[in-house]
Amino acid sequence: MSGKFEARRFEVSETNAVAEPEAEYARLAAAALVLDGKDELAHKRAEFVLDDTVYLDGNSLGALPRNVEARVVDVITREWGRMRIRSWEESGWWTAPERIGDRIAPLIGAAPGQVVVADSTSVNLFKALVAAVRIARQRPGGAGSPDEGRDELVVDASTFPTDGYIAESAARLTGCRLLAVAPADVPGALGPRTAAVLLNHADYQSGRLHDLPGLTAAVHAAGALVVWDLCHTAGALPVGLDEQGVDLAVGCTYKYLNGGPGSPAYLYVRRAHQPHFDSPLPGWNSHAEPFGMRSAYEPAAGALRGRVGTPDILSLLALDAALDVWEGVSMAAVRAKSLALTDFFLECVAAYVPAGRVEAVTPVAHAERGSQVALRCPDAADVMKRLVDRGVVGDFRAPDVLRFGFTPLYVSFADAERAARVLADTLADGSGGGVS
Amino acid sequence: MSGKFEARRFEVSETNAVAEPEAEYARLAAAALVLDGKDELAHKRAEFVLDDTVYLDGNSLGALPRNVEARVVDVITREWGRMRIRSWEESGWWTAPERIGDRIAPLIGAAPGQVVVADSTSVNLFKALVAAVRIARQRPGGAGSPDEGRDELVVDASTFPTDGYIAESAARLTGCRLLAVAPADVPGALGPRTAAVLLNHADYQSGRLHDLPGLTAAVHAAGALVVWDLCHTAGALPVGLDEQGVDLAVGCTYKYLNGGPGSPAYLYVRRAHQPHFDSPLPGWNSHAEPFGMRSAYEPAAGALRGRVGTPDILSLLALDAALDVWEGVSMAAVRAKSLALTDFFLECVAAYVPAGRVEAVTPVAHAERGSQVALRCPDAADVMKRLVDRGVVGDFRAPDVLRFGFTPLYVSFADAERAARVLADTLADGSGGGVS
Repeated sequence: MSGKFEARRFEVSETNAVAEPEAEYARLAAAALVLDGKDELAHKRAEFVLDDTVYLDGNSLGALPRNVEARVVDVITREWGRMRIRSWEESGWWTAPERIGDRIAPLIGAAPGQVVVADSTSVNLFKALVAAVRIARQRPGGAGSPDEGRDELVVDASTFPTDGYIAESAARLTGCRLLAVAPADVPGALGPRTAAVLLNHADYQSGRLHDLPGLTAAVHAAGALVVWDLCHTAGALPVGLDEQGVDLAVGCTYKYLNGGPGSPAYLYVRRAHQPHFDSPLPGWNSHAEPFGMRSAYEPAAGALRGRVGTPDILSLLALDAALDVWEGVSMAAVRAKSLALTDFFLECVAAYVPAGRVEAVTPVAHAERGSQVALRCPDAADVMKRLVDRGVVGDFRAPDVLRFGFTPLYVSFADAERAARVLADTLADGSGGGVS
Repeated sequence: MSGKFEARRFEVSETNAVAEPEAEYARLAAAALVLDGKDELAHKRAEFVLDDTVYLDGNSLGALPRNVEARVVDVITREWGRMRIRSWEESGWWTAPERIGDRIAPLIGAAPGQVVVADSTSVNLFKALVAAVRIARQRPGGAGSPDEGRDELVVDASTFPTDGYIAESAARLTGCRLLAVAPADVPGALGPRTAAVLLNHADYQSGRLHDLPGLTAAVHAAGALVVWDLCHTAGALPVGLDEQGVDLAVGCTYKYLNGGPGSPAYLYVRRAHQPHFDSPLPGWNSHAEPFGMRSAYEPAAGALRGRVGTPDILSLLALDAALDVWEGVSMAAVRAKSLALTDFFLECVAAYVPAGRVEAVTPVAHAERGSQVALRCPDAADVMKRLVDRGVVGDFRAPDVLRFGFTPLYVSFADAERAARVLADTLADGSGGGVS
């Protein structure tokens, strides 16, 4: 599928809206119909609760999978209401973090036993970063002794803010210096003092996809560990954690994984690192014998060493139900549709929107694109408000970015065409100027 | 009510089971009926989903309040399913942590603006302890300069394990030495090097209530900060955080607050400390302008400085609904009933169970008792299994403790009498010996 769409590549800024918009509308609406007809994931849309809104904010909050409600009602009324405390064992509540982690694992290229679902992305970032610094320092340095001299933590300078704030705290508590570096410049910033590097797989604002294999290799060449934030890629494209040798990774589950508002995040700890994973949050859930109630901490084996406190069962099991939509879905098909959708949306925008009125921030090259399209225009906040009023829901990121997320499981090509059309109408009505 | 029950005090070990158990059963069953008839909280039981089980494990997982299901279904189907991303603002999702914190506040004696609901108890313990050490060190010492010499963290030696594990991590990351001290010995362990002290309001195993006012005053006299863990008291008895000058406190919401399995915990930060609360987990939710997406961290004012990542909405709003049961309930009435219930249960146990077969671990003195009764017997694990099979649900804590939690909002005196009767039957059937 993606091959076909290569031919549709274009530059928004190089294309003018045509003088006869009706003909273009007809042409692209017809193209959308053809594309939707060929879409092998089209049947997945029926597994979600959707309406006549064009929902392009699944990169912020995924739509509701249909089977979540019944599952949560069962958890509340039967498992909690009738079985009560027995459910910790008999309903499998206690082991849910690792069991659901193992359901996420194949979506991010991880073999079982390396992912736990727990806490928020920020909290998992903290565990991962402190643990990464500790592992880097424990490993033999040049002289065979622990490499305690590693005292630099590198973070993506354009990162989603929480990653930077948490990295700063992790650096402060482990006696590291924090360096904020643009992802492209990371290889040049690495050295024998680098302990760990935190990178976003896709930039939350521009939608740019960073080079996970190349950057991971560069970090390893410097003897450091890399932590990848997968919030904007898990469920949207293949990640390949095991294959690429990634050390640690975190991500949320409420974007392309559709787990619900604030659903618990996950932590990936590469199997080889698990015996050395020394958590700064060693709660009783990560103890080798949690119900032994021992005063001395002894960490459990495996990924569940990343657990902390009692798991949040309602949200966890809502996520468990939400993950059913991945049944029979290949991430290659998801990626192919994602690229076709964003290509097609950009094509429609180029055809409908007057030249210079918006600027595409998202890279044109497929290898550099996640599953969202970011367009810059000076009146973006106002434009997004009016788009939402007209039934096209994306979001605004300060100061001037319109974000449109394309969730391959439920967004159609017709949605993409309609969104571009409504965007063009909205921009035509608006008082804002161009970008140049 | 509690006055009347003073007369019922006794020592389990000093009382023999009578030769004519039927008469005793009749006497105490009749007494239970009278007590239930006088119970001003009896009507609250109808607000919970209960069956013919005697549920004495509300100190582990509170029973399901009836209105939770409808509220969660509405959150899923309407707020998430139909409103989707708009709900962060329009359904009040974003501000839920502090709004629900303000609903918990009166139950623990806190004025509004000092409690946020977020994360697990363990994670909140970590925030509270690191922040407490930092505040203690920032304050002027003897010479008016920051008191950086404070390098000791004191923790209750009999604490629930997670508190000890997290305290050890907080000590390690802040360069403190960790001292594990029995609560009664804490005053003697304090000194000019003490930075912070972590104490449990009630011991999870024995049910012993510790002297919050006295220990708080002792910690303050040493110039240190105290963090109280309220897991086993919030919702069971008055806590009085503001009145007693407590610095920081944490607690879970799934025991006496009935928030559901693993529902989010809360963090209390005394208003005077809020400007100095320097979180080790400065996630984007605690930023002064979270949607400004700024790379520099600037903490918000107030208790929401204790927030970290995106709040877990399904679980949070289930808790919100669960808190409705506190409408019109005074904590004084809850405490009076709690003591009457545990007195009565102990009286029934003394009357029914052969002398020496179990030993009451929970103190007899009201001032030293929480809302649970712990009985020790060598075959406790097996006894609890058989109790559960017979419809009396408490729990077992290694190595030899039977725990029975009395939730005043839904446990009746008839429940207490029946539990003691089934316990006596179970012990009579069992092969285990006495405690002496």
